[in-house]
Amino acid sequence: MDARTYDVDGFTEALVEHGLMVPTGIRGAWGRGPVFEDILRRFDDLVTRTAAPDRAQELMFPPILARAMIEKLGYMDNFPQLAGSVHSFMGTDKQALELSAKVHAGERWEDMLAPTDVMLTPAACYPVYPTFQGLLPEGGKLVTVMNWVFRHEPSDEPTRLQHFRMREYIRVGRPDEVVQWRDAWLQRGLALLEGLGLPVQSDVASDPFFGRAGRMMAAGQVEQKLKFEILCPVISREKPTAICSFNWHQDHFSSVFRIRSADGGTAHTACLGFGLERVTLALIKQHGYDPADWPQAVRSQLWQ
Amino acid sequence: MDARTYDVDGFTEALVEHGLMVPTGIRGAWGRGPVFEDILRRFDDLVTRTAAPDRAQELMFPPILARAMIEKLGYMDNFPQLAGSVHSFMGTDKQALELSAKVHAGERWEDMLAPTDVMLTPAACYPVYPTFQGLLPEGGKLVTVMNWVFRHEPSDEPTRLQHFRMREYIRVGRPDEVVQWRDAWLQRGLALLEGLGLPVQSDVASDPFFGRAGRMMAAGQVEQKLKFEILCPVISREKPTAICSFNWHQDHFSSVFRIRSADGGTAHTACLGFGLERVTLALIKQHGYDPADWPQAVRSQLWQ
Repeated sequence: MDARTYDVDGFTEALVEHGLMVPTGIRGAWGRGPVFEDILRRFDDLVTRTAAPDRAQELMFPPILARAMIEKLGYMDNFPQLAGSVHSFMGTDKQALELSAKVHAGERWEDMLAPTDVMLTPAACYPVYPTFQGLLPEGGKLVTVMNWVFRHEPSDEPTRLQHFRMREYIRVGRPDEVVQWRDAWLQRGLALLEGLGLPVQSDVASDPFFGRAGRMMAAGQVEQKLKFEILCPVISREKPTAICSFNWHQDHFSSVFRIRSADGGTAHTACLGFGLERVTLALIKQHGYDPADWPQAVRSQLWQ
Repeated sequence: MDARTYDVDGFTEALVEHGLMVPTGIRGAWGRGPVFEDILRRFDDLVTRTAAPDRAQELMFPPILARAMIEKLGYMDNFPQLAGSVHSFMGTDKQALELSAKVHAGERWEDMLAPTDVMLTPAACYPVYPTFQGLLPEGGKLVTVMNWVFRHEPSDEPTRLQHFRMREYIRVGRPDEVVQWRDAWLQRGLALLEGLGLPVQSDVASDPFFGRAGRMMAAGQVEQKLKFEILCPVISREKPTAICSFNWHQDHFSSVFRIRSADGGTAHTACLGFGLERVTLALIKQHGYDPADWPQAVRSQLWQ
């Protein structure tokens, strides 16, 4: 990575110095200090208040989900490099002694493990889709979640984390309902973030599909305008950071989980997600390391 | 497992029916409904208020931690059967196609992955110990965390989850300071939970060390009274569930991370942890599926 593109002004060092982030020896797996957490939670609460009139159903899922779901959704075709597969020891007493000896000898020992039934959740919305299975009520459904998300992309860049929290809204219904909802939220998301003094802009975007075939998938996604992002300069002005994203999946999930809209047709789904750590870092970058010094117009929205 | 020992009265079914827990197809990885989450968060807030005079430093860590730490702490010697090792794909375009073909053919594909630098956090306090490294101030230190914890023990029993949240306090200092703190919190924890109308009792306990050698470790732990638990009937009267635990590690962590107390000696550490999902389930079991119907004396403490 080009050192000029980020951290030119010692952002990471300052985050650590102010106790906002705590080094753990692992790239992209920082501890979060109390002020960082307070900002994150208050932004999450602001999202809740903003979306309250929509009366979304609130759910929460653990950071793991069924391996079978990852397989069924084609995640290993598209993003194998980001996946987190959970393995454990299922052997005998004798094998456990062998495992232990390997660890102490500094040898690799992971081949003595077996895959469990779970993988790390790669997107906060994934566990929600199976709950929609079947015939939807008139008007479709809306769910909100705040889940941990794993992406295997170790980096020293503080906005690129291996494990982070996404606050998502997930809409399912007729294609026109879903697209209309997505378009309305794109404006709502921009207004919410602009209202916090962030210099944001929206743009068409694509997911980091793996390899050569992936580049074609990404191009198709851009052409069909299936993904939008709200971007904000955090590490660099030239390459602003995506802090909120909007995905229209068409029937990708609803065909797998057999979700039908009230008129009997295959439903569409769309989701939007705020990257909570990224929004927090954007606010810190824009307004400073101590929220007590932030503009009153921003403080009054977060610390009601 | 003996079917008579739990769920005799349809507890799991009722939790699902009331929207408190959401099936995901994976044992011990339920979704949590909004009322469940509300109870959990309000109990966590009550703990915060109870412990406020102690002025603990608040930290938060993601659900992953360094593989090297798991190795260094001997976790694979003692609890290999509970470990969660995170593996990902780090191969070429050609290997990715092979991986993809295996997934679609219904063959096992996990041998094409490689271990990452991280594992799932097995105890909420683990990431905290390295932050104590070096010479402590007079009086030692106190930290609190609320982290996700993974244990590979798939079960249909609703109090036995693969991934759950622990609210912990971690104390480090001279041996006498640490034991005194542990003893005081054992009483405080009992009082807090009794105050919520839970029929709790404390007892000496041991960790689920692996295998034959592990049974001796566990016996030693009981003999030395290194672990206490607060137990409450949730699934069964005969086998009450541990909802809070207290561990005195002596110099287990401080010798590995070279933590010295202000007088220059090797520090001791102790921790206490509330199993937040288990406390939530204990409250539901005791007071009913709808918190609106709970006794006023309990409600007034949680919903201030």
